[in-house]
Amino acid sequence: MSLVVVGSVAYDGVETPHGRVDRMLGGAGTYIALAASYFTKVNIVAIVGEDFAQEDFDLLSQRGIDLEGVEQVPGKTFFWQGVYSEDMNDRTTLRTDLNVFADFNPKLPESYKKAPYLLLGNIQPALQRSVRAQMNGVRLVGGDTMNYWIKDYRDELLATIKEWDFLLINDAEARMLSGQANLRRAANAILNMGPNTLVIKRGEYGAILFRRDNHFMVPGYLLEEVFDPTGAGDCFAGGFVGYLAERGFDLKKGHLDPKELSRAVIYGSVMGSFCCEKFGVDRFRTLTREEIDARFAEFRTCTEF
Amino acid sequence: MSLVVVGSVAYDGVETPHGRVDRMLGGAGTYIALAASYFTKVNIVAIVGEDFAQEDFDLLSQRGIDLEGVEQVPGKTFFWQGVYSEDMNDRTTLRTDLNVFADFNPKLPESYKKAPYLLLGNIQPALQRSVRAQMNGVRLVGGDTMNYWIKDYRDELLATIKEWDFLLINDAEARMLSGQANLRRAANAILNMGPNTLVIKRGEYGAILFRRDNHFMVPGYLLEEVFDPTGAGDCFAGGFVGYLAERGFDLKKGHLDPKELSRAVIYGSVMGSFCCEKFGVDRFRTLTREEIDARFAEFRTCTEF
Repeated sequence: MSLVVVGSVAYDGVETPHGRVDRMLGGAGTYIALAASYFTKVNIVAIVGEDFAQEDFDLLSQRGIDLEGVEQVPGKTFFWQGVYSEDMNDRTTLRTDLNVFADFNPKLPESYKKAPYLLLGNIQPALQRSVRAQMNGVRLVGGDTMNYWIKDYRDELLATIKEWDFLLINDAEARMLSGQANLRRAANAILNMGPNTLVIKRGEYGAILFRRDNHFMVPGYLLEEVFDPTGAGDCFAGGFVGYLAERGFDLKKGHLDPKELSRAVIYGSVMGSFCCEKFGVDRFRTLTREEIDARFAEFRTCTEF
Repeated sequence: MSLVVVGSVAYDGVETPHGRVDRMLGGAGTYIALAASYFTKVNIVAIVGEDFAQEDFDLLSQRGIDLEGVEQVPGKTFFWQGVYSEDMNDRTTLRTDLNVFADFNPKLPESYKKAPYLLLGNIQPALQRSVRAQMNGVRLVGGDTMNYWIKDYRDELLATIKEWDFLLINDAEARMLSGQANLRRAANAILNMGPNTLVIKRGEYGAILFRRDNHFMVPGYLLEEVFDPTGAGDCFAGGFVGYLAERGFDLKKGHLDPKELSRAVIYGSVMGSFCCEKFGVDRFRTLTREEIDARFAEFRTCTEF
């Protein structure tokens, strides 16, 4: 079933121990949409500048992503540049040029408004909220955020996530948002803020899904080589919600299989792992659903006992 | 089936964010033996000084641990003192008094020599090797080591682990021993050094078991409160080999269930998690096999999808 994705569509300059690319397609919205497109129909809402290349539009279109909600305006596309540490667990931002993204005020095309699934990428909480308000009868809504909004826009963020079904953040953000160092306590505090489902992403160490009465843990997929971790967390989000949309998952219906959320976490992990195998979005130029399902099965083999 | 454990039996002074104990029973051999004692008959080989308290002997005896191999000699028992960081992921050693442990030259009682299982705690590789040589017809042998031996006793260590069936180390040690940053590559390199089974312990992030043709991953158990992580890795080792001894696991026999090794990793994780719930060995004063099996079942619930 149809999914609306809101987030940045950008150009990135990235340096990792495996190489350097000065300018390539990036942005949270891009990664989420590409990952989710393997599971469901995706509609993206974003803003780009005049410099946005036709071949990049084409890549998204070829994955069946609806671009009606991508506004192209005078000026330059959002540009981010960063460099990763030797072990790739840390990265330093060298440059952030918001450009046209500074005036992003997402307006949903009519055709998007009745989509049952909504994923709000990491943008200003007030904008996330305004998008939520434009949707009619959304079945499942959730998103991502980051340290900047948690620290400096806390009230706005709390009002925003109160309306969400799920929140996807990393462990440092969960600790910051909750004020609790212990993840289990942090999760309990966050589940009291509104979302009934919390997914804490732990990078190479996997992820944990928390609900009030249970939790599900998955270790990180062991890659032989991590070329570029940029976008892995966004691909996780895209795989997670994409799978739920594919399955027509509905939290309000009582007869759902609770293991569907766990499987969504596995698909999230699968998509995050593929993302790291090449620079930027390159892995998605060749990736197939068969490869995705094979890795899902591999996760089962590596964790069953 | 009977297990021989070699390692330090010591006194520890520990400070964590939850409190401080100036002197309490500790040492790798102690933790391994206590954890393994829930699964199998344990025979410990160690050295202590005149100051070793009767109540500490009693604690080990009450768990059915055979103390014939514990030599008590003039002088003081090995003493270690350390302090943990706020998040308990780092610790600083404040004091290491080897005392009688400096002259430890393990001699196995006759009654130990035919035990089918042998776990060599982290001591000088040459001593580990001499213990291995004293055993007759051992079925499964393995152990632990540390950065100090990897760095300064490399040849001795390589000659020692060449004769082992399994090696249990943490991720930093695996990287140091193999010279590979990537864990999958590190594991392949180590499996070429002798052991056909490698378990990499990752602290709060769980553990990975590597064999030539497959691997098994488990996330760390999520505790609400970690009081004292001292000994958790040793309890992991005790639970791992204890379970294999209980099951009569034999690598040389072809008809073994490969999932038994995975279950041993889960029991290792279970024992490591209980260890952190109280200071020092205190959790083992009350822990029951029923609690252990309940947590094993909880691991299944939290990881199945």
